[in-house]
Formats: sequence, C-alpha cells, structure tokens
Amino acid sequence: MKFCMKCGKTVSRKVPAGDNRERFICESCSEIHYQNPKIVVGCVPERNGNILLCRRAIEPRRGFWTVPAGFMELGETVAEGAARETREEACAEVEMGRLFASVDVIEAGQVHLFFAATLLGSYGVGEETLETVLFPKEEIPWAEIAFLSGRFALEKFLEDDGHNNGVHLHRVRRGE
Amino acid sequence: MKFCMKCGKTVSRKVPAGDNRERFICESCSEIHYQNPKIVVGCVPERNGNILLCRRAIEPRRGFWTVPAGFMELGETVAEGAARETREEACAEVEMGRLFASVDVIEAGQVHLFFAATLLGSYGVGEETLETVLFPKEEIPWAEIAFLSGRFALEKFLEDDGHNNGVHLHRVRRGE
Repeated sequence: MKFCMKCGKTVSRKVPAGDNRERFICESCSEIHYQNPKIVVGCVPERNGNILLCRRAIEPRRGFWTVPAGFMELGETVAEGAARETREEACAEVEMGRLFASVDVIEAGQVHLFFAATLLGSYGVGEETLETVLFPKEEIPWAEIAFLSGRFALEKFLEDDGHNNGVHLHRVRRGE
Repeated sequence: MKFCMKCGKTVSRKVPAGDNRERFICESCSEIHYQNPKIVVGCVPERNGNILLCRRAIEPRRGFWTVPAGFMELGETVAEGAARETREEACAEVEMGRLFASVDVIEAGQVHLFFAATLLGSYGVGEETLETVLFPKEEIPWAEIAFLSGRFALEKFLEDDGHNNGVHLHRVRRGE
C-alpha cells in the first residue's frame, strides 16, 4: 500500500494516537487504513458416506483436489458464503450443517471456516474446476489434496463421523 | 474508495474477467481491490460462575457493557486475538476454551467469533473501558448490553452451561 484510497496522496507507517501498532496513515488527509485477516469459507459436502471434492483448474495448486471453499464476500453470512462457493466450484446445492473447523493461516492473513454439509441433487464442474468427484471415504486422494486447511477439515470431518464435537481449531504454518 | 492504493490513480466499479461481481479496479494499473468482511474476536471470561464484563469508555455504545472483543489483527490466531482484546480491555489473562458462537453482522461487513474462556488472576480497566466487573450470572445487566452479537454470545454461553454444543450460528440485523 503506497497511496490513500480516499484522497490519492501518499501513505506512511505510523502508530495512530490511542493505538499500539503501526498502520498505513495518509500524510495528507490523515485517514487510517486498517488491514485485517480475510475469511475463507468452505464445506465438506457428504452424501451416503461419500465426499464431494473438486480438482482445481486454477493456481495455486492447479490439478490438486479441494473441498469447495473461497473468500467470503460482503453481503453474505458465513454459511451463505460456503454454499455459494459450493455452487460456483461444484455446481452443487448443499444443506449446510454445523461449523466444525476453524483454521488460522497467519502467513496468508486468512482464517478458514469449514462446515459439514449434505449434498443435494446433482453436481458438476464450475469454471475454476477441472473435475468434480463424489469419493468414497476410503478413496479420498490424500496425496493430492491442495491445501493443509482443507486436509485438516477432511480429517476432522471423518474423525467426527457425524457427531458434533464443536469446532476443531488448528494453525497452519507455511512450509508444512 | 476513490483511488488505487498501489499507484494512486482513480478506480472505478467493474466486473473483472472471470468474476461475477463488481470490484474497485484501477483505471491505470488495472489492480483489483477486493473488499471482504472483517473478523471481530471476543470471549466470555468466566470464573466460579461469574462473568467478566467491561463498560465501554468509547463510542459506539459508550457506557454500555460488553464482553471483551475487537477486530482481529494480522499476525495472530483467532484465539490469540480474543486473548489480546481481553488483555487490552479488561487487563486480564484468560485460558481460551471452545469457539462456541459465530455471528454474522452483514450490514457492518463483520463476522463475530466468540470463545468460552476461564478468567485467570486479576482484572482491571483498559484504555477503552470505564469499569470492569465480575458479575454473578443472575446479575448480568441485560438491559445495558452494548451489542446484539455480545448479547447472543452471553445467552448461548449460559444456555450451554459449560457443555460443548458446537457453534451457535446467528445473524444480527440492523435495527433489531
């Protein structure tokens, strides 16, 4: 960040009055520009013991498998965001269940929230997806899972085995 | 948002290629500026059946009571953020427990995540706080609670009565 998005003048790093950490502050209009973590929302769509995964058509991790997930947007709830991502990536409708995993990805400035979900009706291949497959649990392609957060969600989903054990908290570190 | 934070030229609202909603895009360098919900993290600190609340010294809702909570920062986990807010507002250390509530505050572009916590040691009055009180459960000042999300968290915390019933999801609407 180099310029103020409000007035277009240059910003610099300073600790605002009453604050305790450096922020980007406009040298002209004094606007403080806060930067905060972003939320990624996703779900594990399940039907009759099978789990729906998408093979990614885009980078990062093109060709690897993932549960439907993506950045939460303004104007939606966390559950609506997870449903929207499932619609976009897997062309599938789901009934959203419990929120069961929260993964901190500090180096990326992200928090990933995962729901258990029940797959309804058909599924297909969204624009960011190469193929969508309903995997029997014992055939999940563990060696080709795209992201550590999604892997954690899948593992805990299977461990929970349909039970509500609350939220599993986890931190993913770069390079793991 | 009027100007590009990367190059300082003007931005306009357009749907980027491959996207399905309008974003702020720089007319000069084509940078896409995404805007996403922010995370508020908080906790309900409890000790021997009593709950720690802070009376707010700042707007909004100056003079009203709240559980310790605030915007999550880059560089911390959700649990670390909730602990930091408790330290800043109530000068208290807590042992963070289960994540038990997630509240969507769509109109504000926020998701509020609340933990159950155990109050350790002493407590005090942070810069944004007028007073900090350890309330017996039956004396919680329900008529003077600052925010609907915090009220929901307090209600569910008491209903749970120490049990892990997973995450209670809720949506707060402006004007309620």
